[in-house]
Amino acid sequence: MASSSTFPDPAIGLPPRVESDSMGSLDIPADCLWGCQTQRSLMNFPIGGTESKMPLEVIYGMALVKKCCAEYHAEIGKMDAKVAGAIAQAADEVIAGHHDRQFPLVTFQTGSGTQTNMNVNEVLSNRAIQILGGEVGSKAPVHPNDHVNKGQSSNDSFPTAMHLSLTKMVVETTIPGMEALLAALNEKMEKFSDIVKIGRTHCQDATPLTLGQEFSGYAMQVEYGIQRLKNSLPSICRLALGGTAVGTGLNTSIGYDAAIAERLAKATGLPFITAPNKFEALAGHDSLVEVSGVLNTIACSLNKIANDLRMLASGPRCGLGELSLPANEPGSSIMPGKVNPTQCEAMTMVCAQVMGNHVAVTVGGAQGHFELNVFKPLMIANLLQSARLVGDSSQSFSSRCVEGLTVNKSRVDELMNASLMLVTALNPHIGYDKASEIAKKCHKEGTTLKEGAVASGYLTAEQFDEWIVPSEMIGPK
Amino acid sequence: MASSSTFPDPAIGLPPRVESDSMGSLDIPADCLWGCQTQRSLMNFPIGGTESKMPLEVIYGMALVKKCCAEYHAEIGKMDAKVAGAIAQAADEVIAGHHDRQFPLVTFQTGSGTQTNMNVNEVLSNRAIQILGGEVGSKAPVHPNDHVNKGQSSNDSFPTAMHLSLTKMVVETTIPGMEALLAALNEKMEKFSDIVKIGRTHCQDATPLTLGQEFSGYAMQVEYGIQRLKNSLPSICRLALGGTAVGTGLNTSIGYDAAIAERLAKATGLPFITAPNKFEALAGHDSLVEVSGVLNTIACSLNKIANDLRMLASGPRCGLGELSLPANEPGSSIMPGKVNPTQCEAMTMVCAQVMGNHVAVTVGGAQGHFELNVFKPLMIANLLQSARLVGDSSQSFSSRCVEGLTVNKSRVDELMNASLMLVTALNPHIGYDKASEIAKKCHKEGTTLKEGAVASGYLTAEQFDEWIVPSEMIGPK
Amino acid sequence: MASSSTFPDPAIGLPPRVESDSMGSLDIPADCLWGCQTQRSLMNFPIGGTESKMPLEVIYGMALVKKCCAEYHAEIGKMDAKVAGAIAQAADEVIAGHHDRQFPLVTFQTGSGTQTNMNVNEVLSNRAIQILGGEVGSKAPVHPNDHVNKGQSSNDSFPTAMHLSLTKMVVETTIPGMEALLAALNEKMEKFSDIVKIGRTHCQDATPLTLGQEFSGYAMQVEYGIQRLKNSLPSICRLALGGTAVGTGLNTSIGYDAAIAERLAKATGLPFITAPNKFEALAGHDSLVEVSGVLNTIACSLNKIANDLRMLASGPRCGLGELSLPANEPGSSIMPGKVNPTQCEAMTMVCAQVMGNHVAVTVGGAQGHFELNVFKPLMIANLLQSARLVGDSSQSFSSRCVEGLTVNKSRVDELMNASLMLVTALNPHIGYDKASEIAKKCHKEGTTLKEGAVASGYLTAEQFDEWIVPSEMIGPK
Amino acid sequence: MASSSTFPDPAIGLPPRVESDSMGSLDIPADCLWGCQTQRSLMNFPIGGTESKMPLEVIYGMALVKKCCAEYHAEIGKMDAKVAGAIAQAADEVIAGHHDRQFPLVTFQTGSGTQTNMNVNEVLSNRAIQILGGEVGSKAPVHPNDHVNKGQSSNDSFPTAMHLSLTKMVVETTIPGMEALLAALNEKMEKFSDIVKIGRTHCQDATPLTLGQEFSGYAMQVEYGIQRLKNSLPSICRLALGGTAVGTGLNTSIGYDAAIAERLAKATGLPFITAPNKFEALAGHDSLVEVSGVLNTIACSLNKIANDLRMLASGPRCGLGELSLPANEPGSSIMPGKVNPTQCEAMTMVCAQVMGNHVAVTVGGAQGHFELNVFKPLMIANLLQSARLVGDSSQSFSSRCVEGLTVNKSRVDELMNASLMLVTALNPHIGYDKASEIAKKCHKEGTTLKEGAVASGYLTAEQFDEWIVPSEMIGPK
Repeated sequence: MASSSTFPDPAIGLPPRVESDSMGSLDIPADCLWGCQTQRSLMNFPIGGTESKMPLEVIYGMALVKKCCAEYHAEIGKMDAKVAGAIAQAADEVIAGHHDRQFPLVTFQTGSGTQTNMNVNEVLSNRAIQILGGEVGSKAPVHPNDHVNKGQSSNDSFPTAMHLSLTKMVVETTIPGMEALLAALNEKMEKFSDIVKIGRTHCQDATPLTLGQEFSGYAMQVEYGIQRLKNSLPSICRLALGGTAVGTGLNTSIGYDAAIAERLAKATGLPFITAPNKFEALAGHDSLVEVSGVLNTIACSLNKIANDLRMLASGPRCGLGELSLPANEPGSSIMPGKVNPTQCEAMTMVCAQVMGNHVAVTVGGAQGHFELNVFKPLMIANLLQSARLVGDSSQSFSSRCVEGLTVNKSRVDELMNASLMLVTALNPHIGYDKASEIAKKCHKEGTTLKEGAVASGYLTAEQFDEWIVPSEMIGPK
Repeated sequence: MASSSTFPDPAIGLPPRVESDSMGSLDIPADCLWGCQTQRSLMNFPIGGTESKMPLEVIYGMALVKKCCAEYHAEIGKMDAKVAGAIAQAADEVIAGHHDRQFPLVTFQTGSGTQTNMNVNEVLSNRAIQILGGEVGSKAPVHPNDHVNKGQSSNDSFPTAMHLSLTKMVVETTIPGMEALLAALNEKMEKFSDIVKIGRTHCQDATPLTLGQEFSGYAMQVEYGIQRLKNSLPSICRLALGGTAVGTGLNTSIGYDAAIAERLAKATGLPFITAPNKFEALAGHDSLVEVSGVLNTIACSLNKIANDLRMLASGPRCGLGELSLPANEPGSSIMPGKVNPTQCEAMTMVCAQVMGNHVAVTVGGAQGHFELNVFKPLMIANLLQSARLVGDSSQSFSSRCVEGLTVNKSRVDELMNASLMLVTALNPHIGYDKASEIAKKCHKEGTTLKEGAVASGYLTAEQFDEWIVPSEMIGPK
Repeated sequence: MASSSTFPDPAIGLPPRVESDSMGSLDIPADCLWGCQTQRSLMNFPIGGTESKMPLEVIYGMALVKKCCAEYHAEIGKMDAKVAGAIAQAADEVIAGHHDRQFPLVTFQTGSGTQTNMNVNEVLSNRAIQILGGEVGSKAPVHPNDHVNKGQSSNDSFPTAMHLSLTKMVVETTIPGMEALLAALNEKMEKFSDIVKIGRTHCQDATPLTLGQEFSGYAMQVEYGIQRLKNSLPSICRLALGGTAVGTGLNTSIGYDAAIAERLAKATGLPFITAPNKFEALAGHDSLVEVSGVLNTIACSLNKIANDLRMLASGPRCGLGELSLPANEPGSSIMPGKVNPTQCEAMTMVCAQVMGNHVAVTVGGAQGHFELNVFKPLMIANLLQSARLVGDSSQSFSSRCVEGLTVNKSRVDELMNASLMLVTALNPHIGYDKASEIAKKCHKEGTTLKEGAVASGYLTAEQFDEWIVPSEMIGPK
Repeated sequence: MASSSTFPDPAIGLPPRVESDSMGSLDIPADCLWGCQTQRSLMNFPIGGTESKMPLEVIYGMALVKKCCAEYHAEIGKMDAKVAGAIAQAADEVIAGHHDRQFPLVTFQTGSGTQTNMNVNEVLSNRAIQILGGEVGSKAPVHPNDHVNKGQSSNDSFPTAMHLSLTKMVVETTIPGMEALLAALNEKMEKFSDIVKIGRTHCQDATPLTLGQEFSGYAMQVEYGIQRLKNSLPSICRLALGGTAVGTGLNTSIGYDAAIAERLAKATGLPFITAPNKFEALAGHDSLVEVSGVLNTIACSLNKIANDLRMLASGPRCGLGELSLPANEPGSSIMPGKVNPTQCEAMTMVCAQVMGNHVAVTVGGAQGHFELNVFKPLMIANLLQSARLVGDSSQSFSSRCVEGLTVNKSRVDELMNASLMLVTALNPHIGYDKASEIAKKCHKEGTTLKEGAVASGYLTAEQFDEWIVPSEMIGPK
């Protein structure tokens, strides 16, 4: 199928250049800034196609790590300032999205992300060489390993980029999306605070509450979700960089780890610190499993809310019909006039995806070996998708479903008045058993509660009107 | 808490006896038939308490293996006939449930089930010794290893007992439960074949179908589920016995594996065969993951059916109300007269449990190492629970919910006639766009479809009656 | 099979008594304190057998709720002090485990836990009646609904018991187990701080670290796990009680919810508060999903640690063999002398179970409807099992595996010295490419690193000894 | 971030055209063949970005459905032959991948896939209009609903495309990938049939087997996996088409469903049939959950195999070292000369992804409502990814890891001879207890088994040599 074709376009017109690494030489397409190791990875991992590409957010995170390391090394005199400057400039271009096509590798590669690390090293090196007027592929004056990767291993730089990209996604996409949703729900809560409606437990009629109260439950769920996410941020703000290959920090100097974390914090405006224990930071990824668990919790909340809204808005004639959702598009292609709860459907599909991704993250997170967990690309790809989906869908659900939904007041009243469950208000007056007897009789005979109550002889019509006042049944006394 | 107390009662009155194994000597409660290794396991795995006990079905399966092996060895002259007879008699007693309290070990023990194997070896040996008039704990004339375990390793006998017990559970509990449910659904399908009702897609009103057709979908799901289970039985009818420690069959003779499988098949009436490849049978448990996957699929079906029924029966006054489920018990403790869809709730909780168990089975099944998978007790405990829950809940759901449910014909008609979606039948006559226009207008103005259609001028009242006949909209022409 | 038999023993000798509820009359075994609704549930939910019994911890939690409510109502003058006192005394007996056999119901019942609520109401009522000298089953002078259930609904009391029991389990079992494990790991970390060993990344030889550093990673994981659990406690310390049927608090008085929460906090010594929003507390159970997510994260940590230890201790002759685990029991039943990593196996099975339970909790948590989530018994049963398994297995793993493990120093040294990966230390001296060349040559020719390095001509033997000092490769400079 | 930008490039130079649907008018980029409904979906579902695009395989499947329906209607005289021909030609172009950029919608849209159905309807209609010389956007002479969607609803055409695309992926990618792996494993099995090696159970030394036997277990797992997949194909070869909106087949004629299925079977060469029950086919997607369960089972097999290989190849100096995997790329960026088991890592990440996707599919599959499951796009996107990943990674793992792996014979022999577990062969000669005593003594004293055995006095050196012959321990006698 067409989608299976390899994604990097062939270089047009120009002959490929030849590069070599420790394993031999290879042709590289002329318009590509990557080198041998990227090219080998492209050949060795034809797994999953374009849908499985390493997320660009990770690439940008890697580029930022490279920039900070280069500038640090220049500052302490261990890297030529021009070289560091060119690396930093190249990294800025990558982060700005100008070289996205230079990062063609897939998630299903080496489990440490080494090949993506080398992809970034090679592209930054070659781009820096261009900036400095050198020859692409010459590894001089900017070497992918000796300069761009200086002071790093894939094993610490890749998880650092994982944490950088995930934190950024959570802070810039997930939380804002949820905050928009919270605001929309809170607004409806206020607006609907006087609308008394039938409650439903076990999907059966129950005692009344206000529609505002019902929405307050949704808002509370979302608010707690935001808190949960914020509480988990410190875990992923601990960065592995400085651990190098196995966590010991071999080939680095004391204080290096903290210095880089500080630079990354400054560059992003996010409270990154160096991980107190680098062995844990390379070999376990519990912090990622934790955040995934929070997103999974949020998915439960959102699934519940979206499900409720589509049920409350079911109809238009043959459902509950208490709410009307905004019509954003024509519905069925065969049934004219039908408008479907499509934002709820997108949302609940997102929730299912997040739950699935969470299991992938868990299975990967559980299987670290010795000094390294080698499910890194898998874990971050699933997490970035989950974090983004929750943010995007919350934003969309908020603006295209919650904000525009309206209440069908007459339908709400009709159901409210038809209900037998107001009988509960009689418990304190006539006792549980008699109240139950009345409710059952009304149900059997199809009468209203008042008719049945009065007919029972246990109370008068006046007492009924005095004792059963739905709007007084929505809170403690 | 009380539930954490160790479960075997202390021997009352009698002093414990002293037994020894390769690691030393230990006190064994006087009324216990188990020996040192069971006692050590009790001490070494205080994990999960009584709720986590090794399922008795596995014990019974192990006992049957022991019996067949003993009889086989007697027949070929490698075991004294009296010893074999005593072992067989002891095994029969165990299988009959007479010694359940002699098997106190938990699931969270050694991952090969070795300790349960030794528990069975010790109890059968001591009981056989009793039968033969010997002294319990003397290991003579029936030795737990040399006789009861003869020709076996935990590594092949335990997975054999896993397959035995699961096959039995599926055949005796799961499938009969589902067949009962299928019969009940089919009966309703027949009974409801003339009741035309509104269809619902996206939880929104759609074109009509019969209630019988709706139930036919449920019945089809269950029927396919039964087929899926039956199709998976050959996988678990392949038995590991004869592989001994690593799959090679060391210390057995050629043909032994097939002979034992034949005896087990005869004893159970189930089509067991010896596994063609014992390495796979010890080191992978894909067959169990496969069956778990089938149960997971069935859980999806049952969740859908139970959910639909509770929604269709929602009310009594403020829901869809098309169906009435039987009232098996008083509902709410505070709301008299309310009857809840409790069988649906038990069923959907079962479904969630089966989905969770499936992940536990999957995670265990994925982590075999070299010649052995050591998640055996975990896998079989989860599978037996899933298989049993599906069977039990299908049976209960069938007899206590489906069989007794009734249709509220007047409510079904009321909703059917209120619907606007019959407009679809106008498509072939006046085209999609005009039909859509009519439906929207009715929706906006709250009129019936006929009123709106005639008012549109696109058709006459006569044409409406001729073209829109719900009972003619329930199939192709 | 025998295990399927119904668990309550038949009353011996005495004729059953007859009781009735709103649905009719029923025989109750003479020695049972439960009433009609419990009996009905026993008949209506033959699902899963004894293995699926509602955890006693939930029963104890329910009993505590009943006690606090009765005492509160007595104090404010709404319940006779004698009645309240008898309820409290009965509740204390239940909590002390004296009536465990009176709670025979299964998890797979009504999804609100109503039947367990009624089971507790009935038993406490009858026991209180006994205490006051009345007739069991007479509902006087202590009525199960009017007195024991006073001021409660299943919908708020059951989730309150869920939070009570889970918090107690986490605080009394899970965290202490993990703290024991943390202490054991920290002790080993200290003890092994001078043992330099080969590191392994991708399961391949890597640069060295100390065994103490390796254990510090494990300890860090466990320490973070404890923190994660503690951070999640505030979520489950919010109690639903006071929401009654739908969250509004109907039939309660203002301040009631906070007063009961205060009593529960005082009775347990745990920081319970009343949930700020009762609609969320009844309809969503995100707090439970959150805690399950934390336990799932911890399962990832523990799986990694247990896996590492069994690999590091693999052998005794043909594995890595760096560690020796304590021999707690004889191993294989066919291979004498073999001792297996059984505590690691129990632990990793626990981890798989926790991951599976988490999915069950998630699936249940996602499917609340309107004012009530009806997967309550499922959710709490899975959570209590997970919390207990993590605590129990951590304790056992700590005392039976970690505390007694020893290092095989000579094997550690042998591997360390055989490794080629120390070559990394040459990078800063001779560059990456030459270092790589040396390592490859040694690998090909089977020589030691020193031999190959000197033969390469890139450095002298003296330089080798100066540059390659494993104990100087375990940290930054 | 750059990756968040909407993916369809803005039309360059040309002004957009204006189109309208039942909801109003919209600007459509000039170079786009899609219409209003696609444009609305683009605006309404900014969820997940390019990574979440609807898989092209589904688009191709939809196009094939459209072609077959058009040709069928032409043949029976219900569609102008020219119109049908143009639709068929346009569909062929789409299937050939010539219009991939015309399908920009994401997975997280309406849960019935309606918007992708309309995207296909619009593009085919406009392309057919172009072919017939008409004006794009004019809906004449080829109307997206009246012609391209003729005889279909999203509700039956989309699941038909789901089954088409998944069957194709399984048959063309998954199974061939696994067959390649099976062939490679079988070849190694043959080649390694004489290499006797130490077995490992519980990760501990066990009795010997041949390397060929070990690989036979892997091959058996893969062979069963292929069988499982093939057994599941009949389930997804049942097609929903002909059910139209709710499963009744409204607006179709008798025999239509079977006729279209036959055309689809002929066009693809795959054994598609019409689903016997269309209600099940629209409202449940158990068939997809079933196939996902099979892929999940296969993931367990592949995880085990890849894990074993990386452990058996661990080293080069400090691991098990029995195997050498081919070096496909330079390994660590900091540790020169190191070559990592990257194909194993890609494979195990694939397995984790498949397990996660399976949960997403399960959660979606469980939540159908009434006549429609609205998790369709989610389900098929996850399944196509899983099926493709298993196929791609099996192919890659086969050719880049299994085919090129070699055995380190001297290492295998060294470990074999060092082992104590050959002691098992003494059981039949001197009994379990004495054999155990010898093994423990050797272990303690660090001697070889022969030394210890002879020193024990239980047997002579001659007997040792006669009784302990590893190559005679690899099967029954």
